[in-house]
Amino acid sequence: MPKTDPAFLSIRELGRLFRARKLSPVELTKHFLERIDRLNPELNTFLTVTSELALAQAKKAEAELFAPRGRKSRHDRGPLHGIPISLKDNIYTAGIRTTAGAKFLKEFIPEQDAPVVSQLKAAGAIILGKTNLHEFAYGVTTNNPHYGPTRNPWDTARIPGGSSGGSAAAVAAGLCVASVGTDTGGSIRIPASLCGVVGFKPSLHCVSMEGVVPLSPTLDCIGPLAHSIEDAALLLDAILDQHKEKTSRRKQKFTLGIPKEFFFDVLSEEVLAAYESALKKLRKAGCKVKEISIPLLNNTEDSGNNIAWAEATHYHQQMGWFPKNSAEYGEDVRARLEIGARVSATTYLEALALREKFIQQFHSTMLDAAVDALVVPSTPIAAPLIGEENTVLHGKDHATRALLLRLNRPANLAGVPAISIPCGLTPSGLPLGLQLIGPAKSEAVLLQIGQLFESFARPSSHPNL
Amino acid sequence: MPKTDPAFLSIRELGRLFRARKLSPVELTKHFLERIDRLNPELNTFLTVTSELALAQAKKAEAELFAPRGRKSRHDRGPLHGIPISLKDNIYTAGIRTTAGAKFLKEFIPEQDAPVVSQLKAAGAIILGKTNLHEFAYGVTTNNPHYGPTRNPWDTARIPGGSSGGSAAAVAAGLCVASVGTDTGGSIRIPASLCGVVGFKPSLHCVSMEGVVPLSPTLDCIGPLAHSIEDAALLLDAILDQHKEKTSRRKQKFTLGIPKEFFFDVLSEEVLAAYESALKKLRKAGCKVKEISIPLLNNTEDSGNNIAWAEATHYHQQMGWFPKNSAEYGEDVRARLEIGARVSATTYLEALALREKFIQQFHSTMLDAAVDALVVPSTPIAAPLIGEENTVLHGKDHATRALLLRLNRPANLAGVPAISIPCGLTPSGLPLGLQLIGPAKSEAVLLQIGQLFESFARPSSHPNL
Repeated sequence: MPKTDPAFLSIRELGRLFRARKLSPVELTKHFLERIDRLNPELNTFLTVTSELALAQAKKAEAELFAPRGRKSRHDRGPLHGIPISLKDNIYTAGIRTTAGAKFLKEFIPEQDAPVVSQLKAAGAIILGKTNLHEFAYGVTTNNPHYGPTRNPWDTARIPGGSSGGSAAAVAAGLCVASVGTDTGGSIRIPASLCGVVGFKPSLHCVSMEGVVPLSPTLDCIGPLAHSIEDAALLLDAILDQHKEKTSRRKQKFTLGIPKEFFFDVLSEEVLAAYESALKKLRKAGCKVKEISIPLLNNTEDSGNNIAWAEATHYHQQMGWFPKNSAEYGEDVRARLEIGARVSATTYLEALALREKFIQQFHSTMLDAAVDALVVPSTPIAAPLIGEENTVLHGKDHATRALLLRLNRPANLAGVPAISIPCGLTPSGLPLGLQLIGPAKSEAVLLQIGQLFESFARPSSHPNL
Repeated sequence: MPKTDPAFLSIRELGRLFRARKLSPVELTKHFLERIDRLNPELNTFLTVTSELALAQAKKAEAELFAPRGRKSRHDRGPLHGIPISLKDNIYTAGIRTTAGAKFLKEFIPEQDAPVVSQLKAAGAIILGKTNLHEFAYGVTTNNPHYGPTRNPWDTARIPGGSSGGSAAAVAAGLCVASVGTDTGGSIRIPASLCGVVGFKPSLHCVSMEGVVPLSPTLDCIGPLAHSIEDAALLLDAILDQHKEKTSRRKQKFTLGIPKEFFFDVLSEEVLAAYESALKKLRKAGCKVKEISIPLLNNTEDSGNNIAWAEATHYHQQMGWFPKNSAEYGEDVRARLEIGARVSATTYLEALALREKFIQQFHSTMLDAAVDALVVPSTPIAAPLIGEENTVLHGKDHATRALLLRLNRPANLAGVPAISIPCGLTPSGLPLGLQLIGPAKSEAVLLQIGQLFESFARPSSHPNL
């Protein structure tokens, strides 16, 4: 075992230790299982821990990696080989229950892996288990009424954000190397921001959504949560559809855009301070920064809501769950499903039409201004307390849920990639995220800007546990 | 001038006469303008007659066609060169008013031709004018409250069907060689059936819908109305998108499918008799006929309605017309726009989901059964009287509108080509149509089956005027 706790080492470093026989996949997996045993009862990040499966996978990885050179059994599957990860529990895993955080799916065991799971297994990743989430991924607190709240490892009285809260908290707490979540309106980036990890939502349709319990097919994406951009990129490479560009294209100089509209209307002072300090570091790293105007950003909140509300309710109706199982949903999710039933078709079509216009305006503005990515905060506030439904900012009362969502929806509505990167702590020690949003298929550029920022700014801290 | 009235000659025959100098495009155009002068006041098929433009186009066509061989000015544009046609008045024509049959678009003059108009002009077609339609193409009677009803040339007390009623009646009455209409739920095939002409709705997205006042973008199509399959095919070839297959592929033996479900549930006895006689002729022509089962046909009526209602109202809202101009719509169209405002997003999404399943079932069933096309009636009844809102069939009262639509919607919902071919007259002398419906992109096969049927069965009659 290396001196630093291997639970917080990078994938590349772990791979190096494996290949130098200084650490074995089985040792590492056991180490994570011990940490989960110790820390999960309080944090509640995992709903299902697949110890036996993980150890079997680790033994197989070890056999393949540690077989002497030239031996037929030797098989190096690349950077993810032997790396223990977790999966959000709305992603189908063959033979392992997949609850989607719902009461009436407590015993649901899929017959097949989602393609994304098959891809990760083929790359040699070890599955430690399934992580807690907001019920049906339909909310941002991960205060799950059926399986209990996930707690933020930086302050266990606080939420980790959501809906991929279990994934973000598990990574932050060193209970897995990385995790895979889903993002419909910020569900990867919000918990990444609130837990101080990297969260990446790729372009729409770049990762197969098959075998994932849908929320809103027009907006849903799968993506990684990890300690660093590099780790996130390695996971992303394993799950991006073959025909899509891999994250390897290189560029040297970047121009970042700060939108005039929307993103800075409602922000806490500590978020603004962290953002401004991050901007300074990006400038120091050689990035050009310019202001741009995308007026339709102001319409993204309503449009995103109406699309998600209607599509979510339609799915639950189609499955025969809603309104039949109404009593078995948590109060907040039931209320949203009821809202969805009242959205009119013309409102929905209007939202889709606005989306088309927004996609157009977003891309043409960035192209005209030669901007590689927008740089904005990930969330207007740091992690709220569990159960805190309202947040006061500058003397005004806001619904906490709406606050956490608002800066994240634009990327879902535009179908473009966006990343949340840790950018320091508040004075009281809570992490905050910086968000980069690029045009469609700009995954590679976002990762490069992210790495540049990390190299100048990464606090590389993790919570004391 | 030839002996037969040239108003009823085929495009090929007219082209032969032009090229033999036995008839000139200017003579023919004048002949049609005279017929329009004489017959249109009663029939009300044209809303705008573009006499000057038509004569100028005819002179140009004549100069190009009649210039001596080898002369630089000689230019033969092919089969449509010098052929006078009409256009439904919801298709944009540069400098010519395009009312869409709406009161508040009475003075609307587009700046540009719709692509389909440019294509027809480039092929040398002469535009005689713009034909009457159901207000905003949103109905099947062409009993237009603002511009008056179009009358069926076979019996002027009766409707021509709709919404392309002006186009079908103008062709049937010999006021143009052919016409171009639009079809969202049967708007080409219904009037074709009721007026005894050929009407062709191609596959979705095979003809550009740009520059056409939309009704329901998921269902809308442009297509020709003509005296024969051959004439319809010549128009279709001119407007099908370049990248699509042209209508030239050849096949010898055809298998036709008769669906068990839906199509024969509500039919008048005279329609059933004409259909059975048409089937006999198809069998005599060598076609194999077999029964097949497409159970989702039974759901096409509701799904088609919900999609059209929601999308139509959304468009009128987007344009700022509805509800602002509510008082200026005809009663029936206003009522439908109000229904559309009440469709819920989940109902709309459910209809789209049903549509996907129907497309799947329709195509897989036809493929499994090796069926080239379904053969069914076009309409369950012959032309009703103007103002007849209800029709009694077998002692049961039906909304006339719903009756006329019901056999046509399946092809729109599946996005597949369908053709209505005259198949004889009722005992009281009203025309009836036979409908062929093929899988997506089977235009060529449908035209061949249609020609086969015509060669065995075509009554080749036209109304006495």
